[in-house]
Parts: sequence; C-alpha cells; structure tokens
Amino acid sequence: MHEALRAFLADIDELSDTDREAIAPLIQVDEYPQGHLLLQAGEIACRCYHVLRGCVRQYQLIDGKDKTTAFFTEGQTIVSFASYTQQQPVAHYWECLEDCVLIVGDMVQERDAYEQFPQLEVITRRMMAEDFGEMQREMSAFMTASPRDRYLRLLETRPELLQRVPQHQLASFLGVTPESLSRIRRRLRERS
Amino acid sequence: MHEALRAFLADIDELSDTDREAIAPLIQVDEYPQGHLLLQAGEIACRCYHVLRGCVRQYQLIDGKDKTTAFFTEGQTIVSFASYTQQQPVAHYWECLEDCVLIVGDMVQERDAYEQFPQLEVITRRMMAEDFGEMQREMSAFMTASPRDRYLRLLETRPELLQRVPQHQLASFLGVTPESLSRIRRRLRERS
Repeated sequence: MHEALRAFLADIDELSDTDREAIAPLIQVDEYPQGHLLLQAGEIACRCYHVLRGCVRQYQLIDGKDKTTAFFTEGQTIVSFASYTQQQPVAHYWECLEDCVLIVGDMVQERDAYEQFPQLEVITRRMMAEDFGEMQREMSAFMTASPRDRYLRLLETRPELLQRVPQHQLASFLGVTPESLSRIRRRLRERS
Repeated sequence: MHEALRAFLADIDELSDTDREAIAPLIQVDEYPQGHLLLQAGEIACRCYHVLRGCVRQYQLIDGKDKTTAFFTEGQTIVSFASYTQQQPVAHYWECLEDCVLIVGDMVQERDAYEQFPQLEVITRRMMAEDFGEMQREMSAFMTASPRDRYLRLLETRPELLQRVPQHQLASFLGVTPESLSRIRRRLRERS
C-alpha cells in the first residue's frame, strides 16, 4: 500500500484496520511530476482526485490572462461536479504546482468500489458535504471581504499556502494585482 | 398535496406517478410571508429548504453593513452544509424577499424519508452534485469576472432576478456600490 494512502486511510475514523486493508486495493494512487496538466479547458473532467501530497492549481485563461481560482493541497478533493456527473466541458485547467501524490477516481471505479464496500459511499457523501460546506464558506468570505481581509483570512486558514505558491498566482487568487498584494503585505508589516 | 409540490415532483424524471403519491406525504411544505427570517446569524441551520415559489436572500452583517451573498429562487436548495451536518453556527441570515412556498427538511425527517423511500436518497445525492457543480461555476465566475461581466452573466443566467430584487441588494450581490451598478447599466444601455 502506498504510504501516503496508508496515512489517509488511518485518518478516516469510520474504518477499522480490517476495513482499511480491504479498501486499499480498490483505491488508485498515482504520482504526477511538477508542471503536469491533469486537465485542460474544453475537456470533460471525467476523473476526480484527492490530494495525498502536493499542490494543484486551478486556473482559467481569460482574454489570454491566467487567472487562478483555486489551490488544492493535502486533504482536499479536486472534482468539477458539472463535468464529472453531467459530462460538460470545463473552462479551467488543473496544473500540478509540485510533485503530487493523488488518489485518482472515475465514475466506473467509484461505482465498483461502492458495490464492493458500501460504507465507502457513506464516507464519500460525508466528505462531499464537508467540502460543500467549505466551499459555501469560501464563497461568502470571498464575496464579503476586501482584498486585504482575503489575504488575512488566507494567513489564518492556509498559512502554508503562502510559502508554496508564487506571489503572482496568489495575487490572482485573491483578486488583486501583484503590486496591490505587495502593498497589502508591506502595510501589514509596518503596522505589526 | 400542495399544488407547488405536485409540480416539483412531476419534474423529477426518476419517479413514477405511484412513487410521487407515495413520497408526497413524506415531504413537508410550508408557506412563509415576505420579510420572514428563516435563519439568523449565530444560529445553527438545522433545517434545509427547497424553493417551490418565492425568493430568499442570504446576507451577512459586516461592520453593520448588510452584504448580500445569495438569492435563492424556484428550484434552488437552501442549505448551509457546515451548519446542517456539523452543527456549526452560521454567519448569515436567510430572509424571505417575497411570500414563499418552501419544502422544509431536517436531518431526522431526511433520514426517515430515506428509510421509507431509498430512491429519494439517490435523487437527493444527484441534486446535491448538481448544486455543487453550480456553486463551483458561480465561484469561478465571480472570481474571474469584472463587476460589469458579473452583471452581464446575471442578465444571461437569471434575468428574472433583476425584476424581483431591489437594486441595492443586487449591487451588493455583484460586489459593487449601487452607484457603480447604475453606471454599468447606463453604459450598457448607451452602447445597445
């Protein structure tokens, strides 16, 4: 069993050790090098991923400009539901910002795994509800916060991201220019 | 059976007419007057809703200012997952902007209904994936679009909303001041 998968399964409280041994062979773990594109705009996102190690960036090209809309790190699931469940093409890219170890799934694999181990479906649904809750919080926070408050929130909720991600991508993710982000950081430093 | 519920069930392709008659008594439909608060900041959102008729606004009070983060209209589900599944207090309010007819559910009702009619769980999961997909699209669109493009997108995807919702709430939802929204609309009118 991949060591990162072992750690992942160990964290799922609902499972006994026997369950973990039984489930592991149903789960596909792949490694991808930094720079690898998991998905390109216009494609159907027929696979979903769960980050065991690494960082994946979601971005769109808008009028030729690269706009970051998400960073996925350890413990986060990467799925475009409209595409995954209804076969609609996506508008975004998924790029490995680091060497990544990912759980990889598709609809067929997922259904097979649920058939062989129904408890997995309950766990997946629980995780999906948690992810949905997280996304709702993120959406409200993004809509209601100023760029400065978005940056402070990121410092609080995902401080490691600031070390792992290039400044211009971080700025894009926060909805500001790199210059504005520098200014925000400088002012916060001066005040502290 | 409430007439709005009949129309709702008629739209669910997975169900036979016999299924619909069997399910209807498991579903609670309530009416709420305009102005009614379904939820207040600090409470646990232990109920979820599905709009059969009407419009519900989600907003937060930030430094005393009212900030709209969502409008829910016919066919949309209103649920705060982090609160509903993990009993965390919410930061927002849900206010009926119009007289509303809503399906109302809670965890216990939901579990009971699934036990009596397991197919309902499959349907709910399908709807949840659709809602999640919609929210992912909305989030990316909000992050990547200018206020003008957000307005154009709203014109395209939810034109009825512009007739139903006060201008200052619409502006807040788009992340601009009411003056900026007026300017955007005026410029678009002049150009067309």
